[in-house]
Amino acid sequence: MGWQECVAAVRPGDSAAVAAALARQDRLTKPPGSLGRLEALSAQLAGIAGGCPAPVPQRPEVIIFAGDHGVVAQGVSAFPPEVTPQMVLNFLRGGAAINVLARQLGATVTVVDAGVAVELPPTPGLVRAKIAAGTADFSQQPAMTVDQAQAALELGVRVTQERLAAGCDLLACGEMGIGNTTPAAAITAVCTGRSPQEVTGPGTGLAAPAVQHKAAVIAAALRLHGPTAAAPLELLAAVGGFELGALAGALLAAAAARVPVVVDGFIATAGALLAVGLCPGVRDYLIGGHCSQEPGHRAALQALRLEPLLDLGLRLGEGTGAVLACHLVIAAARLLAEMATFAEAGVAAGHE
Amino acid sequence: MGWQECVAAVRPGDSAAVAAALARQDRLTKPPGSLGRLEALSAQLAGIAGGCPAPVPQRPEVIIFAGDHGVVAQGVSAFPPEVTPQMVLNFLRGGAAINVLARQLGATVTVVDAGVAVELPPTPGLVRAKIAAGTADFSQQPAMTVDQAQAALELGVRVTQERLAAGCDLLACGEMGIGNTTPAAAITAVCTGRSPQEVTGPGTGLAAPAVQHKAAVIAAALRLHGPTAAAPLELLAAVGGFELGALAGALLAAAAARVPVVVDGFIATAGALLAVGLCPGVRDYLIGGHCSQEPGHRAALQALRLEPLLDLGLRLGEGTGAVLACHLVIAAARLLAEMATFAEAGVAAGHE
Repeated sequence: MGWQECVAAVRPGDSAAVAAALARQDRLTKPPGSLGRLEALSAQLAGIAGGCPAPVPQRPEVIIFAGDHGVVAQGVSAFPPEVTPQMVLNFLRGGAAINVLARQLGATVTVVDAGVAVELPPTPGLVRAKIAAGTADFSQQPAMTVDQAQAALELGVRVTQERLAAGCDLLACGEMGIGNTTPAAAITAVCTGRSPQEVTGPGTGLAAPAVQHKAAVIAAALRLHGPTAAAPLELLAAVGGFELGALAGALLAAAAARVPVVVDGFIATAGALLAVGLCPGVRDYLIGGHCSQEPGHRAALQALRLEPLLDLGLRLGEGTGAVLACHLVIAAARLLAEMATFAEAGVAAGHE
Repeated sequence: MGWQECVAAVRPGDSAAVAAALARQDRLTKPPGSLGRLEALSAQLAGIAGGCPAPVPQRPEVIIFAGDHGVVAQGVSAFPPEVTPQMVLNFLRGGAAINVLARQLGATVTVVDAGVAVELPPTPGLVRAKIAAGTADFSQQPAMTVDQAQAALELGVRVTQERLAAGCDLLACGEMGIGNTTPAAAITAVCTGRSPQEVTGPGTGLAAPAVQHKAAVIAAALRLHGPTAAAPLELLAAVGGFELGALAGALLAAAAARVPVVVDGFIATAGALLAVGLCPGVRDYLIGGHCSQEPGHRAALQALRLEPLLDLGLRLGEGTGAVLACHLVIAAARLLAEMATFAEAGVAAGHE
């Protein structure tokens, strides 16, 4: 199934299952509403699964999409671009934050080279499928061709479908790519209608003057290419990244397969903006994992109507916030499925 | 070791270990500070353990202290008091929210009858040690004697020391007791200097006029007994609860043994106010699990200088928010202990 077939296959969440879940929450042995946001989350999971209670996720997985960015030539990152492949190798050796958190969750990590600038050696856990050796510098020309943008989407679809076929039933998508808060801010500005200044931040650690320069680079690129939210594929091509396109494709594939996806930080949320732009029905399958410190993230989440589960001041990416939030997603599913009802437990209900 | 010996045994967190943890965070393969609040939490855990990195908790456990409250005669709860023993039995059968969440975490649940109004049958997992069959109605007389208050503290100390001896290395304390947001609000008002109206809320689901009545009952009781934050034992005796005293004792025992404790909701935080009142050094061992919807909870957390990890609109108690937060506590410990450094991974560090 290609990305356009995924778009055609996405169905809305099952509203009857959502209603059944909310009704069941009121029969469980607790004051009505006392599980707070976990009650609505359990209902969303029921809507995704098309039944109440939803099955408890048994196999959460992480996919990290990696890519490099020609725009780093403009001095938009605190880290040099050679860190992208270095961190990919760190993921594959299990030393990065996402590895630690994935081990805690019992989740496998798949790393996808969607467009790292250098060749990476064949390694277990690495999908070597780069669209190109980094994007072009979008301050000078489009980051990629529209054909490459489609290829990035297809890559995300393909890898995700492989993981779903292997049993993954809860997906956390992450990314790695030095410089990629710059395309993420560009996409966020276009999709939320905010100015580049409002949604551009320090990324991995730029000082304030460099953040202003980064915002100016983005503003100039948006004037050069004139991308619009109404044409997400062209937006991805103009100012996106290969890992961002692949991430969007992953969300399309998960939604088409009715599998919930926990959205990670600012860059992953920019990928979600692209996916929802291509297919609004994807929204029902997304869970906001966390709100990062990057200033554009809240605007992007608001545009998607996602209320993040965690707010821990994270700004790392890799899928770290999404994987932390998976514990809460699984908790919501288990509570709906496993708690006793008042009738089952012989507990008296409340009165007003 | 009795409760007063615990008070004498509590030492401050190890500031050298805290500093070593923060320095190590800057060498791990991520931008400095990018793990947000998990970095400070990992440093707190190092301070508690007295070494960097702190050992990763291997055996989180939950203790739920249960008790009944004479003040329910004043119409301060949406649920009838027979629900306290019914919910205790639900805990022991594994059907409550806390059971579901503890199973997910791999944590055992110990339930302590500190003062339930009716006899509970001997059951595995239940510690039958009630101080009395519910407190007296504190709108008319002190909730308990000072001797009973001390016995409640000792009960919490004893049960906690048993669990720590069995290997528990991360403690989540919860509570169950119909009516117990009323003593919690009374204690919170006294310890934070807020008015009863400011810190009294709907508990399990009171309507607004009943909340006003509840606040008036508390205000009258505070005028009747005149308790002060400077005399926490007498405060517990005047307007507390047996489960609240036992919970405070649990925190004293955990701090004396240098074991971190995740504080749960409004009632558990009132117990923490008592424990810190008795022994300010306990503060270093407490981790704020979540912020509940109960209006007094944030004031109580602020008085303790605890920044909650989660804010999910929970208002259930039982230890549910604390157990959910344990996933984040364990994550913080694992990140500090398991992530590769820049040098180990051969990753280039950033520049400004």
